[in-house]
Amino acid sequence: MPAPPVLGTLESALYAADLDAAEAFYSGILGLQVIARQAGRHVFFRVGASVLLVFDPSATDHPPQPGAALPVPGHGAHGRGHYCLSVAAEHLDGWRAHLEEAGVTVEADFRWPNGARSIYVRDPAENSVEFAEPGLWG
Amino acid sequence: MPAPPVLGTLESALYAADLDAAEAFYSGILGLQVIARQAGRHVFFRVGASVLLVFDPSATDHPPQPGAALPVPGHGAHGRGHYCLSVAAEHLDGWRAHLEEAGVTVEADFRWPNGARSIYVRDPAENSVEFAEPGLWG
Repeated sequence: MPAPPVLGTLESALYAADLDAAEAFYSGILGLQVIARQAGRHVFFRVGASVLLVFDPSATDHPPQPGAALPVPGHGAHGRGHYCLSVAAEHLDGWRAHLEEAGVTVEADFRWPNGARSIYVRDPAENSVEFAEPGLWG
Repeated sequence: MPAPPVLGTLESALYAADLDAAEAFYSGILGLQVIARQAGRHVFFRVGASVLLVFDPSATDHPPQPGAALPVPGHGAHGRGHYCLSVAAEHLDGWRAHLEEAGVTVEADFRWPNGARSIYVRDPAENSVEFAEPGLWG
């Protein structure tokens, strides 16, 4: 039987031990709206029709409590993840200027063979955060 | 200066040492279209307007070669990540049946306080993969 349809990505996850620093970066610098926060566990941000979830893996990488009303499966990665924001091509120069004005180091800024431009920075947990035009993927 | 606008999520990343197993799961069972593949490094899938990237972290967690034409910053996480597909509420029963028919264990299936339903499974690398209706996030 063929798979039922999917609409798109609803949630992407990154991990960070310092959630306050993550919030200062994603909300304070990137301007994303905080839509949920639980101290020591997570902070979530709206990104268009989807949501970026940032978890402290030490708080989430365990099974749910037996009988929990919300038996959320455990997960929690370590090391440097990756996430890419879709940005209209005409706003990439503005993003680069904005990031540099905020003191964020631009680690890379180049065009792919198809002409699409990507700008890369690090979040405070060293996750690789990319800003790319949607044409990167056609 | 306020941050320039973002359109949404363009790329989400998961990590898996066995990329063939990842492809068999995300393409063979979930039905996602493979849009790029590099043996031993990555396999990418289209998910609506965004892309799910699955990397072998042993191949990506190092700096780009000096002078590389495409100086892609290194990243690569270990452990159990998380990703959530947006699925119309009326297709969640069909997704559960499809997953079970494919031999995928449903780890959790419950409704959040706002009534939105989530179904959770594991990919072959133990990443937590969720199917949820977009109303989960309003």
